[in-house]
Amino acid sequence: MRSFADITDALAEQAIELPSWAFGNSGTRFRVFGQPGVPRTPEEKIADAAKVHEYTGLAPTVALHIPWDKVDDYAKLAAFAQDHGVALGTINSNTFQDDDYKFGSLTHVDERVRQKAIAHMHECIEIMTATGSRDLKIWLADGTNYPGQGDLRGRQDRLAASLAEVYAQLGDDQRLVLEYKFFEPAFYATDVPDWGTSYAHCVALGEKAFVCLDTGHHAPGTNIEFIVTQLLRLGRLGSFDFNSRFYADDDLIVGAADPFQLFRILYEVVRGGGYGKDSGVAFMLDQCHNIEPKIPGQIRSVLNVQEMTARALLVDTDELLAAEKAGDVLGANQLLMDAFYTDVRGDLAEWRAGRGLPADPMKEFLASGYLDQIAADRVGGDQAGWGA
Amino acid sequence: MRSFADITDALAEQAIELPSWAFGNSGTRFRVFGQPGVPRTPEEKIADAAKVHEYTGLAPTVALHIPWDKVDDYAKLAAFAQDHGVALGTINSNTFQDDDYKFGSLTHVDERVRQKAIAHMHECIEIMTATGSRDLKIWLADGTNYPGQGDLRGRQDRLAASLAEVYAQLGDDQRLVLEYKFFEPAFYATDVPDWGTSYAHCVALGEKAFVCLDTGHHAPGTNIEFIVTQLLRLGRLGSFDFNSRFYADDDLIVGAADPFQLFRILYEVVRGGGYGKDSGVAFMLDQCHNIEPKIPGQIRSVLNVQEMTARALLVDTDELLAAEKAGDVLGANQLLMDAFYTDVRGDLAEWRAGRGLPADPMKEFLASGYLDQIAADRVGGDQAGWGA
Amino acid sequence: MRSFADITDALAEQAIELPSWAFGNSGTRFRVFGQPGVPRTPEEKIADAAKVHEYTGLAPTVALHIPWDKVDDYAKLAAFAQDHGVALGTINSNTFQDDDYKFGSLTHVDERVRQKAIAHMHECIEIMTATGSRDLKIWLADGTNYPGQGDLRGRQDRLAASLAEVYAQLGDDQRLVLEYKFFEPAFYATDVPDWGTSYAHCVALGEKAFVCLDTGHHAPGTNIEFIVTQLLRLGRLGSFDFNSRFYADDDLIVGAADPFQLFRILYEVVRGGGYGKDSGVAFMLDQCHNIEPKIPGQIRSVLNVQEMTARALLVDTDELLAAEKAGDVLGANQLLMDAFYTDVRGDLAEWRAGRGLPADPMKEFLASGYLDQIAADRVGGDQAGWGA
Amino acid sequence: MRSFADITDALAEQAIELPSWAFGNSGTRFRVFGQPGVPRTPEEKIADAAKVHEYTGLAPTVALHIPWDKVDDYAKLAAFAQDHGVALGTINSNTFQDDDYKFGSLTHVDERVRQKAIAHMHECIEIMTATGSRDLKIWLADGTNYPGQGDLRGRQDRLAASLAEVYAQLGDDQRLVLEYKFFEPAFYATDVPDWGTSYAHCVALGEKAFVCLDTGHHAPGTNIEFIVTQLLRLGRLGSFDFNSRFYADDDLIVGAADPFQLFRILYEVVRGGGYGKDSGVAFMLDQCHNIEPKIPGQIRSVLNVQEMTARALLVDTDELLAAEKAGDVLGANQLLMDAFYTDVRGDLAEWRAGRGLPADPMKEFLASGYLDQIAADRVGGDQAGWGA
Repeated sequence: MRSFADITDALAEQAIELPSWAFGNSGTRFRVFGQPGVPRTPEEKIADAAKVHEYTGLAPTVALHIPWDKVDDYAKLAAFAQDHGVALGTINSNTFQDDDYKFGSLTHVDERVRQKAIAHMHECIEIMTATGSRDLKIWLADGTNYPGQGDLRGRQDRLAASLAEVYAQLGDDQRLVLEYKFFEPAFYATDVPDWGTSYAHCVALGEKAFVCLDTGHHAPGTNIEFIVTQLLRLGRLGSFDFNSRFYADDDLIVGAADPFQLFRILYEVVRGGGYGKDSGVAFMLDQCHNIEPKIPGQIRSVLNVQEMTARALLVDTDELLAAEKAGDVLGANQLLMDAFYTDVRGDLAEWRAGRGLPADPMKEFLASGYLDQIAADRVGGDQAGWGA
Repeated sequence: MRSFADITDALAEQAIELPSWAFGNSGTRFRVFGQPGVPRTPEEKIADAAKVHEYTGLAPTVALHIPWDKVDDYAKLAAFAQDHGVALGTINSNTFQDDDYKFGSLTHVDERVRQKAIAHMHECIEIMTATGSRDLKIWLADGTNYPGQGDLRGRQDRLAASLAEVYAQLGDDQRLVLEYKFFEPAFYATDVPDWGTSYAHCVALGEKAFVCLDTGHHAPGTNIEFIVTQLLRLGRLGSFDFNSRFYADDDLIVGAADPFQLFRILYEVVRGGGYGKDSGVAFMLDQCHNIEPKIPGQIRSVLNVQEMTARALLVDTDELLAAEKAGDVLGANQLLMDAFYTDVRGDLAEWRAGRGLPADPMKEFLASGYLDQIAADRVGGDQAGWGA
Repeated sequence: MRSFADITDALAEQAIELPSWAFGNSGTRFRVFGQPGVPRTPEEKIADAAKVHEYTGLAPTVALHIPWDKVDDYAKLAAFAQDHGVALGTINSNTFQDDDYKFGSLTHVDERVRQKAIAHMHECIEIMTATGSRDLKIWLADGTNYPGQGDLRGRQDRLAASLAEVYAQLGDDQRLVLEYKFFEPAFYATDVPDWGTSYAHCVALGEKAFVCLDTGHHAPGTNIEFIVTQLLRLGRLGSFDFNSRFYADDDLIVGAADPFQLFRILYEVVRGGGYGKDSGVAFMLDQCHNIEPKIPGQIRSVLNVQEMTARALLVDTDELLAAEKAGDVLGANQLLMDAFYTDVRGDLAEWRAGRGLPADPMKEFLASGYLDQIAADRVGGDQAGWGA
Repeated sequence: MRSFADITDALAEQAIELPSWAFGNSGTRFRVFGQPGVPRTPEEKIADAAKVHEYTGLAPTVALHIPWDKVDDYAKLAAFAQDHGVALGTINSNTFQDDDYKFGSLTHVDERVRQKAIAHMHECIEIMTATGSRDLKIWLADGTNYPGQGDLRGRQDRLAASLAEVYAQLGDDQRLVLEYKFFEPAFYATDVPDWGTSYAHCVALGEKAFVCLDTGHHAPGTNIEFIVTQLLRLGRLGSFDFNSRFYADDDLIVGAADPFQLFRILYEVVRGGGYGKDSGVAFMLDQCHNIEPKIPGQIRSVLNVQEMTARALLVDTDELLAAEKAGDVLGANQLLMDAFYTDVRGDLAEWRAGRGLPADPMKEFLASGYLDQIAADRVGGDQAGWGA
């Protein structure tokens, strides 16, 4: 096993993008519980996200969601972010909250609706150019609820054609990142349900198209780290949407449901060259804090990723390969588990302190009074949420 | 196999309760799409439900949801229903749409919240007395999202105590029906997650407590007809919430996702004595028509149940038992499949016509102009939905 | 909906390949129950398979499994088959029953073992040339049981290299068909776990490499017909291994667990151009008859595929597309369900009789005395099974 | 959080029963790989199990499997065990490896087969009396593969009657422990598929009947620790069969697949009073070491249970309850995670050494030469496995 000293350079490279919408209200179809102090504007979301970075040093960028975060002047928004110590990141498109999209967007049988969705994507690309963002993330709610409702083949063909129109507008340094999801909100067939579908479309599009892997978007039992390995090998892993789940797309705090799975995923990221500044793989959170406070929820999340990344970096791959070569099943497994069971929290606290960060970011943030302040300040107006 | 003539008496006994909320808007956490003509009041919901009964003869009662269907005068509402040819049925409680219930209701750690939830149940029982309803249905959203968040044991103990307080208020002819659900909206632990839990609480409560089996509330792969068999054997199957699903609690039209499963369930209902007027087992729908029109969606649903009930009634259990005794695996399976593959639709159409009902209820309803009429009439006001 | 007369030409093209091993003993890890009359030689397996074709007209070819069906003279075996009215089909390789393969075959970390596995594949190709078979089917048990045990990335890279060596030996008219499987016998990571992995390897290999879709090899809830659609669209669907399952890879009779799923799969096959003589898509069975008699089990299976193919052919895709265009969710669904619920068994019986086949193949076969005869004749020797 | 010093008394009480069959060969339906040195007799199995106890101090008893471990003189076998430092434990019945049980045992439609199975159970009880064992463990392979094959209701009724006959023969200090399993080897319906079924039968039997929870026997996503809580609350948790799984009943080393789940389970055991000498809850392993060496596999397993028990014991339930009361979701979760992430391995090593045990049991055992010795000694004879 490697030592903590061996891995600090790598740890220093870690950057996790926060989703602006994680600071707004969210919930289930049964109920959205509001919280005091929830942001009402894109600026307030960015201010909250900046707090996470201030206390952890882990979250230098914020992803926007269009139209939820539409503003008149994106340069001004970018400057606002910079003033708060962060930058704007990925632009997330939204084609699931307009009546026109009831039966699909890029896959819709009606040319008019498809063109509307494509135009929205083009608008997102324009915003990217204004904000200096690299990635256009496309997640589609497209799908069908009943067998027969839609022609599965026609929907794929239309999807391919629509994506090609979107792709054509990308600048040289821009990327299209296509997210897949097993199910929800479609309950029979989803048009991009698995990594294979996303991958096949990306290959058809060209070298600027990549797959986004949301850790909550798989069938029960799916070995997610295998997909990480495969996509890195194929050169098409564009980004992660981190979260965790016990059942479906629960969108819980990353690492909360199965920390060992998160460890295995991060080990494969490191093993496959997907870690670090130049890897081209973006780490993002995509979570819902339905019942827990949002900023602390995000702090816990980035800390969980950091702690598990540290454990993953501790693994000595050469040792593992040697044990595999020797057919030593238990020995190889123990090497991996030794890293997982190593308690890195003390070393991380010390290392953070050495870099001018709080040793215990959660404790310091909670003591800072920021939550009380925003609860007091943010009175009136409409709290942000899915759809606003 | 039995003949269609053999089963018409049994078919004539079929009664399926419609949920008032199926006529209101529903959706996913991503979007609720409104529909023209959606009811704005309990009366309009009942009027729509009555149409389903008028065209199919299958849906003589309507379940209410409190507080969504709260009115000042329940006797008047019952009379309104009667005027439309239907009666009021099960009263469904709701303890998931109030800020107080964010961390639970009957299981809440805070005595005050528990008492509030119990008081709500008592109010529901009073409404039952006013409407002449037999069943109080309790589905709880109670649960936790994160390990450690709640004390699983304490929650069970409090649940038992709360249920006992509710139960104590039941009249002699009233029943408490406790529904279980695998997950959602709680994403780590649900307080009544399986039939075993519901059953254990019912036994502890007494002879007026029964289990409600919602066909969409199980883990992947669960053999639901086995649970039907077991609960009938134990004398504790109180009611069904019918719907169908491919993934989680998708709440699709019953029979849409796996018609053969519906057939097997209905066969076990018949086999175990759970079918017919005196069985004590209530057939209810609990579905969401997110993208399809609501009244036709309910018509399709009750027809699906009727068609599959007919197929299930065709099975000759004595023949099956003989094949089992002979160890004839393929022969026994074929007997069952023969009934399933028998196309009963023509016989049912004829039989319906002979009873003064439309041979093709869906076609006649669509031709009736009712949908256009309500779309034109119901302008203004707030469309009903989850939470209104 | 189309009429039965419209679809008989298509039905006449149906050909389903039987696996020789379906006639041998099989079971679970807990127990293999033997059956009287089970074949002891490849010839006896072929004789049994020929009976299925004789009574149904649906099963003109038999797949071999090497080494289980190794013989000295394959030309002689092919002639034997021809004498019995059938031909030899796909050659199935086996790299999971030798001590060397305990930790993998084509993916093994040890070059020696990989070369042994590759040599086995080359031997299979030689047999294909001798038998005139088109397809080499590769299903790998390769995988790992414990995290850390094997290097996921290295295993993929070795797999790609090994497959390339195998592929290089294919004749111009021969194909490599790579099967994927979710899990079992590996319980942590499987080296070809999903269609995406199989597809990516096939594309890398070249135009003679195709994906084999075994209907039992997916995660719970997977929409299999979507994968059919996608692979047909990508031009890489090589063959089906038909069977059915309630839980894992249960290998039950095709259509037994979810007949509606089989219908949807077959509809997408037809819709996507995967049906018929020139489609390049092979229909095969891959099942275990652990407790039911084997020849009747195979008869039931091919009949199930035929009956469901008939229903799928009845669907009028133009009508479906029109309903989709109109946004008529319930109408489109009903069109599909009408075909599914149509009882084609009578028409099929008549049509069979008109072609000189038994109207009721199962009944006639059971009455033929063949089962008694083989039980009496096949005494002594070793019954065939997995591993012999 | 409690300190390690606080929990050593509790740790000293830990006792984990080893299954004799874990030392024999096992595998999947595809292949059983033999291993050098595998025991050929019950005595050799016990000798191997005793090694696990010698090096860990955690495994004082060995469970027998009848008929695999049948001997002429059980008193002599018990003495043999005692000489090796261990005692005989639970007696496991087997009604799945005889041709008569092809369609069931205690549930079989044929009275003769049921009586044979009951007689086998009675024989097991006699052996218990001879060995001084407390528990008769019943796991049934009973179930059906095809709908219609068996009458689900009849099978339950027969099961109840058969169990009553078995139960009647129990001595005052003996218990019947009924294990449930989701599926396998039955692939449609299993006769004891869930805890609810096992619980309902136990309650009907009487106070000496308990549920056995095998951690691998649940549907995907099932919250197992909830079941632990519920069964402890209901006073019916008799024993654990520990193992782990990623997919189905994979029977991997306990803690290997999801260590956090094991932690949560053990926390609920402690929380619910199921831990320690007087709890009446037996900890057992039930695993397959298909590819890893068996004795080290068992050592790893008991160490995993011990390490995770230590973490679970560290949790301060009062702190958790206070956080729940305060509605502090993240705080409560962090309290639990703090215990889980605490690296107890160093403290445990020291504590072991202080009790005269090896600090690193695995390392010392591997260095002891025992594996080489048995590989050299155990030549000839038939290696033990499932079925011998």
